[in-house]
Amino acid sequence: MRKLGVLVLFNLVLAHQAVAQSSQVQGPVSGSSLTLFGIADIALAYGSGSIAHTTQLTSSGNMQSRLGFRGLQDLGGGLGAGFWLETGLQVDNGGGTAGNINNQPSGATNPDFMSFSRRATVSLMDFWGEIRMGRDFTATFRNRDQTDPFGTSGVGASLPFSMSIVGVTSTRASNMVGYFLPEGLGGVFGEVQVFMGENVSYKPGFQPNAQPNPQDGNGYAARVGWSGGPFGIAVSSGKTKYAQTATTGDVEAYSVGAFYDFGVVRLTAGYFVDEKRQFTTVKSKSYIAGAVIPVGPHQFKISYSSSGTDEFTDPRAKKLAVGYVYNLSKRTAAYTTFAYLRNSGDSAVALNNSITEPGRSSRGFDLGLRHSF
Amino acid sequence: MRKLGVLVLFNLVLAHQAVAQSSQVQGPVSGSSLTLFGIADIALAYGSGSIAHTTQLTSSGNMQSRLGFRGLQDLGGGLGAGFWLETGLQVDNGGGTAGNINNQPSGATNPDFMSFSRRATVSLMDFWGEIRMGRDFTATFRNRDQTDPFGTSGVGASLPFSMSIVGVTSTRASNMVGYFLPEGLGGVFGEVQVFMGENVSYKPGFQPNAQPNPQDGNGYAARVGWSGGPFGIAVSSGKTKYAQTATTGDVEAYSVGAFYDFGVVRLTAGYFVDEKRQFTTVKSKSYIAGAVIPVGPHQFKISYSSSGTDEFTDPRAKKLAVGYVYNLSKRTAAYTTFAYLRNSGDSAVALNNSITEPGRSSRGFDLGLRHSF
Amino acid sequence: MRKLGVLVLFNLVLAHQAVAQSSQVQGPVSGSSLTLFGIADIALAYGSGSIAHTTQLTSSGNMQSRLGFRGLQDLGGGLGAGFWLETGLQVDNGGGTAGNINNQPSGATNPDFMSFSRRATVSLMDFWGEIRMGRDFTATFRNRDQTDPFGTSGVGASLPFSMSIVGVTSTRASNMVGYFLPEGLGGVFGEVQVFMGENVSYKPGFQPNAQPNPQDGNGYAARVGWSGGPFGIAVSSGKTKYAQTATTGDVEAYSVGAFYDFGVVRLTAGYFVDEKRQFTTVKSKSYIAGAVIPVGPHQFKISYSSSGTDEFTDPRAKKLAVGYVYNLSKRTAAYTTFAYLRNSGDSAVALNNSITEPGRSSRGFDLGLRHSF
Repeated sequence: MRKLGVLVLFNLVLAHQAVAQSSQVQGPVSGSSLTLFGIADIALAYGSGSIAHTTQLTSSGNMQSRLGFRGLQDLGGGLGAGFWLETGLQVDNGGGTAGNINNQPSGATNPDFMSFSRRATVSLMDFWGEIRMGRDFTATFRNRDQTDPFGTSGVGASLPFSMSIVGVTSTRASNMVGYFLPEGLGGVFGEVQVFMGENVSYKPGFQPNAQPNPQDGNGYAARVGWSGGPFGIAVSSGKTKYAQTATTGDVEAYSVGAFYDFGVVRLTAGYFVDEKRQFTTVKSKSYIAGAVIPVGPHQFKISYSSSGTDEFTDPRAKKLAVGYVYNLSKRTAAYTTFAYLRNSGDSAVALNNSITEPGRSSRGFDLGLRHSF
Repeated sequence: MRKLGVLVLFNLVLAHQAVAQSSQVQGPVSGSSLTLFGIADIALAYGSGSIAHTTQLTSSGNMQSRLGFRGLQDLGGGLGAGFWLETGLQVDNGGGTAGNINNQPSGATNPDFMSFSRRATVSLMDFWGEIRMGRDFTATFRNRDQTDPFGTSGVGASLPFSMSIVGVTSTRASNMVGYFLPEGLGGVFGEVQVFMGENVSYKPGFQPNAQPNPQDGNGYAARVGWSGGPFGIAVSSGKTKYAQTATTGDVEAYSVGAFYDFGVVRLTAGYFVDEKRQFTTVKSKSYIAGAVIPVGPHQFKISYSSSGTDEFTDPRAKKLAVGYVYNLSKRTAAYTTFAYLRNSGDSAVALNNSITEPGRSSRGFDLGLRHSF
Repeated sequence: MRKLGVLVLFNLVLAHQAVAQSSQVQGPVSGSSLTLFGIADIALAYGSGSIAHTTQLTSSGNMQSRLGFRGLQDLGGGLGAGFWLETGLQVDNGGGTAGNINNQPSGATNPDFMSFSRRATVSLMDFWGEIRMGRDFTATFRNRDQTDPFGTSGVGASLPFSMSIVGVTSTRASNMVGYFLPEGLGGVFGEVQVFMGENVSYKPGFQPNAQPNPQDGNGYAARVGWSGGPFGIAVSSGKTKYAQTATTGDVEAYSVGAFYDFGVVRLTAGYFVDEKRQFTTVKSKSYIAGAVIPVGPHQFKISYSSSGTDEFTDPRAKKLAVGYVYNLSKRTAAYTTFAYLRNSGDSAVALNNSITEPGRSSRGFDLGLRHSF
């Protein structure tokens, strides 16, 4: 038996459709799979502000570039187990994307190397829904993402996303245990999550002076919604604890998001309140209204978003973004996005890594190619 | 011919069985393969000591989480070539696990990123056994691993493993050339390894003062054993060289491990001596006795281990660990482990990242889910 | 439907041939594919110089070790899209290889972790050729590589490669947009590339003192050639901009390379001029002549190369390298290489990490195993 043997036990399942977002909920499992998937998205990006302008080749103008491995195993009777490992990519230079291992500023990781910081989870799922453990999106991120025609990617990304004052858990959290409602509840969907900062808890008399607060990075998030026919709506809230100082403190996020799909146009809208309970609480209010118009292989996008806080100068930015996507196939698209941002108060947000003065405007432009596999 | 062509040259072979441990020896090769494999293991872990307690989501409570690529090529006549690339994973936050590139403290790498620090090897194998080159487990690790019902993972991991004073080569070494005996020698198995610290060797008169010792990180390890029917036994020894100072020096490890499988229960036992030849030599003696009881899909584990040195206060820790594993399938299991550790002398070992005072005890608990792919 | 479903959508295509070099140009696409590929190459490497010698286990003595994912999608009518993600490997210790994210010294990344720093690109291709965006080889590297019988790997690597004074863009550049001519132009081939350093450009009056030059790391490269029957020739040139100081400035590279394949022997030759326009311009001139003799599974290699600058002492190194490769299969080879290097002027180049005095010689030796998958 020195001949090549048939060692094929199982085939790799490749997702051909764009994996725009981690699936939100998985129900009973029938069938096992192992999938290699990813997105390679690259764009020429120009940004200008009153101080400096930039021309760069950037990653992720239309969707976040990534490489992942995921699998499902059918355990019988509907019960299933699964894993998901996903690294971000900077396709322009070969790097990865940053993560955070403990939901605190101290846990930030280097973006130039690969780590499964986009998602690393193990799940159990059945008719009762899904238990998911590891690092994943927080429930409070989903309204920011799903109300944004630009999916929080590229120069068009919404201000409720990019100007969130919630900090490192605004998008994802590590050390998380989450529960997702199953499908088939008459359109009701939802999730609840608890995550940990993992600091040690000292007994009385043993607490060192310089030790981080044992609660830092602990938190929870939840989201519940309903969708039926062309309409859907969801509310979410979350909290992450940090010791109170002049510049930090517990953060909370509340939001409501909705969509209405007329077929010729899909409208989205969202309203977001973030609070940061430092010595003087800061509160931000943000909103977005967006539209996506699909015409055969063409897709037109427009969004108007605004975000600002109640700080002394009433800093606020407003952004208009328009985009066009030409789908060369289900997996490959060319796209362009233009965005105009206007600051007021001492807000000095600038687009595509340009720099602008407080109260001045910024413009940005992406021209790119996105390929999913 | 603008249609989709059939480009399938070869299928990916996926190992469905749990890859609990890198295979120890591979004989003649018949058939080629390329395998993507891994383990995603996540656990809620609680630890308490007299000073501080912790609640964390941790990776690898039952088996070490990993992602790997390996392959074999049949070169004809039994001769085969293979490669193995395996990164550790922290599934709770998406990171990797630390490695060491030169077998010295200076070679430690960052755990938060992916590298193939669990194993990176190229092999040639035939009837005469296997030559394996790269980074891999040291021969002295195998008795620590194979006598431990908890496989050196999670809160139940044995003290001969976790309290080894051998240092960075206790578990793995980089820059290693190893030889494994083939199977079919009447139950005899064995391996011998040489590894290099890769410091430069200066000629007389050129040695700079601050330069590391040219021998630092050089070493060897060997293991030989016999197994037949329900019984097996193995002895191992190894040495790694370091310049002698008050806190470091050559390290040596000696051990004997054995198992007896009664069917209803599999018993293991091991005895370990480590030496560190700093100005005042330190010697540690460790032992373990363990049992694994399989009952259908259920698995019960218990181990008692002890490790201590001959330093002034006779520091020693003793640990009792009990575990239960429920196999949902061959690839997926839920598990729980409880461990109690008692220190004596000025030993202050604590479980699951808790902190305890010298001579005080510590408790730890894991509740987790392990999924292999 | 609780049974295992057929989820196989697409098979993974595995390239069985050695992937010695990234393909230079891709034409019209017919058929889609997704490929996992790599090389694991490991060698025992000895180097000696007048000051110090080394014995190490190194990676990449015959070809650069790597792991990659690449894919092509047929978009119809010959149009295709593709991606390519490739990390370097240090198989001796499990690490990756360094990259550079912005084509400047500040952009260097850590070699001990994985990143797709060998290549990260997205492409569109059709009858008109290929547009390729991301991180890839520069056009000026290809003559260095293709005239070298040792493919710029291991102790035999040519001096025009290893002694280039061009800096970080000598081999690869990030943030690059390139265009490749299609095949079928009567033997004419070529490419042109523009790459960006991505520094911000300040408006007048806003430029901070310590800011890097906005042009640093911007550049371009081009190569054009012809091959027909046994003969081929190509010329290339490139430039990368850096602010002028006593030790740095714009770098330029010019070269011509050619081969003639007699069947029993393949001859290569190349001539290279690098310029570095610091306050006092430095110019290096390098050349190589090489031969590869294939005899069944055996391959004999020899090269003579030389590189030196016009600096005060006329520093120059000359190297003779001889190699033997035994192909165990198309994918696996054992090899050995011996090289002798002679310095003149104050050149102090040494082989395989040894150290030698200015004007003294160095010797090096590799004995290794290369496995492609």
